[in-house]
Amino acid sequence: MYIVPEAAIADILTRDDAFAAVEQVFAAMSAGDAYNFPVIREAIGHENALYGFKGGFDGKGMALGLKAGGYWPHNLEKRGLINHQSTVFLFDPDTGKVAAMVGGNLLTALRTAAASSVSIKHLARKDARVMGMIGAGHQAKFQLRAALETHSFDKVIGWNYHPEMLPSLAEVAAEFDLPFERVELDGMTEADVVISMTSSFDPIFGTAHISPGTHVA
Amino acid sequence: MYIVPEAAIADILTRDDAFAAVEQVFAAMSAGDAYNFPVIREAIGHENALYGFKGGFDGKGMALGLKAGGYWPHNLEKRGLINHQSTVFLFDPDTGKVAAMVGGNLLTALRTAAASSVSIKHLARKDARVMGMIGAGHQAKFQLRAALETHSFDKVIGWNYHPEMLPSLAEVAAEFDLPFERVELDGMTEADVVISMTSSFDPIFGTAHISPGTHVA
Repeated sequence: MYIVPEAAIADILTRDDAFAAVEQVFAAMSAGDAYNFPVIREAIGHENALYGFKGGFDGKGMALGLKAGGYWPHNLEKRGLINHQSTVFLFDPDTGKVAAMVGGNLLTALRTAAASSVSIKHLARKDARVMGMIGAGHQAKFQLRAALETHSFDKVIGWNYHPEMLPSLAEVAAEFDLPFERVELDGMTEADVVISMTSSFDPIFGTAHISPGTHVA
Repeated sequence: MYIVPEAAIADILTRDDAFAAVEQVFAAMSAGDAYNFPVIREAIGHENALYGFKGGFDGKGMALGLKAGGYWPHNLEKRGLINHQSTVFLFDPDTGKVAAMVGGNLLTALRTAAASSVSIKHLARKDARVMGMIGAGHQAKFQLRAALETHSFDKVIGWNYHPEMLPSLAEVAAEFDLPFERVELDGMTEADVVISMTSSFDPIFGTAHISPGTHVA
């Protein structure tokens, strides 16, 4: 079997790989060849942790397994570990024997970013010019980088509840030689594609902030 | 982390260990310190397999994790593998990081046997003399062996839908120098403890086959 520690993922999985894998599994789901199992998500009453399992079977790509792990909110402050911790386990669909154990932290970030960039490729207008970001946290950078690789934009605009975090989006835009502009939510109407990536439980934007024809991921 | 392959379990886990572990976790569940998550069980539409996850958290023993795997009905005929295949994954309850991967096949057999023997210790009459088995398959032998270690019986009686399999129960009884008698279901009224361990979807026995005061596992 394969055992792939977290530290090895960055050298193995490219964003192109993640994009291709997510695109293929979305196609398989659409065709009825792949599906997700019900999600288990439990507040275990220890360390305020949320723990659970996300599993599924892709009968086209012949992938069977789950991601197990969750959110340990005190990891960073107490131990210097990231709060989201997960591990992926794959099984042989022909026998049920375990086939692989793979560190799932960077994998999750790359998969989540690939999901929105696949949607941009297939659902956004081909002439989209302005990329709008709502949110500027750790995962938002992954989403933006994947989006800018997928489609050729002229400009990135961004809003965040904590505006002091917006320079991290500007850095990603600079990787692609694109200008970045900080906007208020009203200014998000300029965007042709909007990615919303926040941890808010409340709605942040409404129809007043999105122009007709805009793709929202 | 610990990686314990299936082949190593027989030399590591004794029936006494399994009994103590199951007894402790049942006590923790009774005290509200441990619980099981909802079970995921999916017919994946490949190899007629049933695949899923059984997870839980024991806040007393500080054990967090799941068993993943299932039932591949063609394994034995096609590949010489046992049909039930499972793997146990444990996580650090303090951080959410994966802590152990353990072959789960023999573990499942020992745990299942321990569950009924723990019930016999705590719920059967102390003067129980006759052990009655309904079922004589692979798992039934584990159940009987654990029961005979837990309580001192004078005799074992057994019934099975395929009576030609009953000698396997007689072999286990002989390990404990106990006589074995094959009975019809009506004869099961002689038993003070009955373990039912079959794969039947239909009810097999009723009140006519069980005497008052009998413990049924």
